Amino acid sequence: MNYAMVVNQFGLLVMLLSGFMLIAPAVAAAFRGLPGDASAVGAMIITGTTSLLLGSVAFLLSRKGDKFLGRKEALLLVATSWIGGALVAALPFWLWALWDSPAGHPFRSLVHCYFEAMSGLTTTGATVLGGEQPIDIESLPPSLLLWRSLTHWLGGLGIVVLFVAVLPGLGVGGKRLFNIEASGPAKEGLQPQIRETARWLWYIYVGLTVAEFLLLRTLGGLDSFDSLNHTFATLSTGGFSTRNASIGAFEGNLFVYPIIITFMLLAGVNFGLYYKLGRGKLTNIFADTELRVYLGLTALGTVLIALTLIVNQTPITMTDATVHETPGWLGAFWHSTFATVTSLTGTGFCAPDFENWPFLAKGLIVTIMFVGPCSGSTGGGMKVIRVWVGIKLLLAEIEHIFRPQVIRPVRLGNTTLDPELRLGTAIYLLGVLVLFAGGAFLVMFFEQFNSQQDLDPITALTASIATLSNVGPGLGLVGPTGNYGGFTSPSLLLMSLLMALGRLEVYAIIVLFSPTFWRRD
Amino acid sequence: MNYAMVVNQFGLLVMLLSGFMLIAPAVAAAFRGLPGDASAVGAMIITGTTSLLLGSVAFLLSRKGDKFLGRKEALLLVATSWIGGALVAALPFWLWALWDSPAGHPFRSLVHCYFEAMSGLTTTGATVLGGEQPIDIESLPPSLLLWRSLTHWLGGLGIVVLFVAVLPGLGVGGKRLFNIEASGPAKEGLQPQIRETARWLWYIYVGLTVAEFLLLRTLGGLDSFDSLNHTFATLSTGGFSTRNASIGAFEGNLFVYPIIITFMLLAGVNFGLYYKLGRGKLTNIFADTELRVYLGLTALGTVLIALTLIVNQTPITMTDATVHETPGWLGAFWHSTFATVTSLTGTGFCAPDFENWPFLAKGLIVTIMFVGPCSGSTGGGMKVIRVWVGIKLLLAEIEHIFRPQVIRPVRLGNTTLDPELRLGTAIYLLGVLVLFAGGAFLVMFFEQFNSQQDLDPITALTASIATLSNVGPGLGLVGPTGNYGGFTSPSLLLMSLLMALGRLEVYAIIVLFSPTFWRRD
Repeated sequence: MNYAMVVNQFGLLVMLLSGFMLIAPAVAAAFRGLPGDASAVGAMIITGTTSLLLGSVAFLLSRKGDKFLGRKEALLLVATSWIGGALVAALPFWLWALWDSPAGHPFRSLVHCYFEAMSGLTTTGATVLGGEQPIDIESLPPSLLLWRSLTHWLGGLGIVVLFVAVLPGLGVGGKRLFNIEASGPAKEGLQPQIRETARWLWYIYVGLTVAEFLLLRTLGGLDSFDSLNHTFATLSTGGFSTRNASIGAFEGNLFVYPIIITFMLLAGVNFGLYYKLGRGKLTNIFADTELRVYLGLTALGTVLIALTLIVNQTPITMTDATVHETPGWLGAFWHSTFATVTSLTGTGFCAPDFENWPFLAKGLIVTIMFVGPCSGSTGGGMKVIRVWVGIKLLLAEIEHIFRPQVIRPVRLGNTTLDPELRLGTAIYLLGVLVLFAGGAFLVMFFEQFNSQQDLDPITALTASIATLSNVGPGLGLVGPTGNYGGFTSPSLLLMSLLMALGRLEVYAIIVLFSPTFWRRD
Repeated sequence: MNYAMVVNQFGLLVMLLSGFMLIAPAVAAAFRGLPGDASAVGAMIITGTTSLLLGSVAFLLSRKGDKFLGRKEALLLVATSWIGGALVAALPFWLWALWDSPAGHPFRSLVHCYFEAMSGLTTTGATVLGGEQPIDIESLPPSLLLWRSLTHWLGGLGIVVLFVAVLPGLGVGGKRLFNIEASGPAKEGLQPQIRETARWLWYIYVGLTVAEFLLLRTLGGLDSFDSLNHTFATLSTGGFSTRNASIGAFEGNLFVYPIIITFMLLAGVNFGLYYKLGRGKLTNIFADTELRVYLGLTALGTVLIALTLIVNQTPITMTDATVHETPGWLGAFWHSTFATVTSLTGTGFCAPDFENWPFLAKGLIVTIMFVGPCSGSTGGGMKVIRVWVGIKLLLAEIEHIFRPQVIRPVRLGNTTLDPELRLGTAIYLLGVLVLFAGGAFLVMFFEQFNSQQDLDPITALTASIATLSNVGPGLGLVGPTGNYGGFTSPSLLLMSLLMALGRLEVYAIIVLFSPTFWRRD
């Protein structure tokens, strides 16, 4: 293992993070003014400068020597980027809290800050903030709010570049693991010119960012600060909001819902498709199987959830506590669309409080959290393509029982899935389910151990999947109007690990637990 | 599809069931006397005679014509045997209840009777009986109690013969699906002389039955009736008891625990191993990988659960409400062994009420319910061998990520698992988890739909796995002192389906839902 090169590249990443940390307070001050934000700006400048310094030292000291970055080094670097990066990103929260936060603020605990930063960088959007002032979201100084949203945006960009540009270029092995993600069913693949691809992805990402910002600012009627923050949180399918009621705070403007829904959906598409479309390598984007299943699933979820709302004549309570007593067909579809898209893409913005919805609607919402959007998008979860392959494998296996003579190949578009890929997909799905169950079990255990009271299992189960799938809110204590601030530190650290596992598609983190990985070879 | 042959063989099965239905009251009367049992004996004679008649007619009318019993016919016959057989087995309960049961008795509902009979034939042991007299277990007439235990014994024998003797003989396709179960890792396999193998299995099963009966009768101090019933329930890993407190009722005698624990463990072993041992084809039974993992898992579960009891100084409450305030190390191990073995083998006998145990102990108990004992045993669940293979596959996949050049074969004993078998195992495990989650979800939905109140999720989740894995008791309302009588009919029917799915290793039931299965070909 060439540790020097890992340190070198991680140093570079820390320098990059620090740079944004130093820019953020200036932008926040420009939008919201400096008064009341002084201590937070101070905290960000101090941590930004310090980490810029440390990052530079690490980068410079490790500059010489072997430039080799092999498979193991790349995996270790990816894992370190999120696990270590979250620590760097957590420091401004913590320093500000030690310095100038009200008593009992969650950020006075470094673990809570780490959870929040990891939730940001992994584009999860689970927050420890919430409750009455001054520990709610809106009481946080503007520069910290912006930094919080910015971690989403950086994390989302990082993931797209990683999964669409970098990993498929790591050679055949890398292709094997990530070829479904990287190029969709057609295997022509993105060219291994990593820099070129990354540059294009950056254009696309920034382009979408500018478009959503302008739409929210003009049509949506949000001020510049809110527009910027919510744009960051949408395109990364993150979900941090600057408002306690999340998107529910903007219900007054008719355009906010459709803008947010559209961009959440766009962020859930494989960015490789945008790239191919932009480079003229694809004429019909809807030829992509995963995209069609993704849109079909969105439509199906919306209709089913709307129907349960209509049949049960459920009043829609919003996160800002306004209630639509008789929402009617249109209202039911309206809010069902929002709930479906925010859950499927793993954004986790809240507007209707689905905690009070019928059991069936809640069950569907949790189920689609497992699925997640397309591979190569900024969203988390199992990914549409894997679930689709999993369903095909199950059906093929059933037919195989009574027709062993028929060997029907499992196809995806024009490609026949080879045995290794089929096994890999099945094991991946199995692994996610094991992690989900293990996560829920450990959270219940940690909380029970600390409080001697059983944690409500719905909270534990949905907290586990909402972090593992990088969604954010779940049900129960972590529902649309709840938050993660009440968990004890072991649970928060565990859920930070779940977020990293989910974000990096499990393997990049789980290899760290393998003794063979660390062995010299 | 040759329906005539399926009807013919099912007719034969009904005749066999009816025969036992006519013998049971005589045996019960011999042990417990006729007074107080008259109406139940009448009900059994009437249903036994009627179904004997109907079975004979079906058998005789379908006797002529094509004798072909192919793969599809075999699958349909197996499914019909349990789904239809449970209906026949349920009739004595129902007729007795219509005729002579106290008001509000669960058996007045045919669905409840069907659930109980399915629970018997699938060796699950989940019961709708319980609560205060006269709807408790002990108030049931002796002949019905014996019939209830007898369904376990017949179901257990059927499963062993099916999975060890019949299915592996169905040709290569059959071998493919069941070869792990049938012959353990070494592939020499049992000879396809089905009759011969079945006869030997019958000897072994009856031999173990006689041995346990005698031990319980003499050392255990149980009367003949209780000895017989509990022997039936142990060897089939069923778990129906004649006592409200289950095995907790016999705590006074020191020998009952070790006898029951030993025979539960023996029933959880692959009967193919006993067969091979008996035929001199195996010198060292412990060479079998699955057996070693099974025993290791038992030891591990026992130690871990005992440790949580010791650390937490948990008082042990028995199902008969006696409490051991300070059980000490020995007591903790004693009861932990019982709880581990009854859960892992899927017997579901109760003695310590683990509902009050620490969270970690309960979590471990539920986890081992998923696993189940060895393939080719009378127990349900995923089976030790599949879980073992699943773990190996997960580990192999992790190493594959950072060492794609190393192709390490996944081995089991001396056999390398071929890709098809690896994929099949992964998909099977995935399928069981999907069924478990779907089952819990639907139970919650049915109960919520009927009562407008959310069902406690722990009850729903453990009821789903306890029926799917053919265990019996779970936690919450279906815990060691609870029962399934409170569920509504849709839930009971669903759980009957789960029991059949689990018992027949999913595929024999699930093919019935495939339209292709019914298509002419």
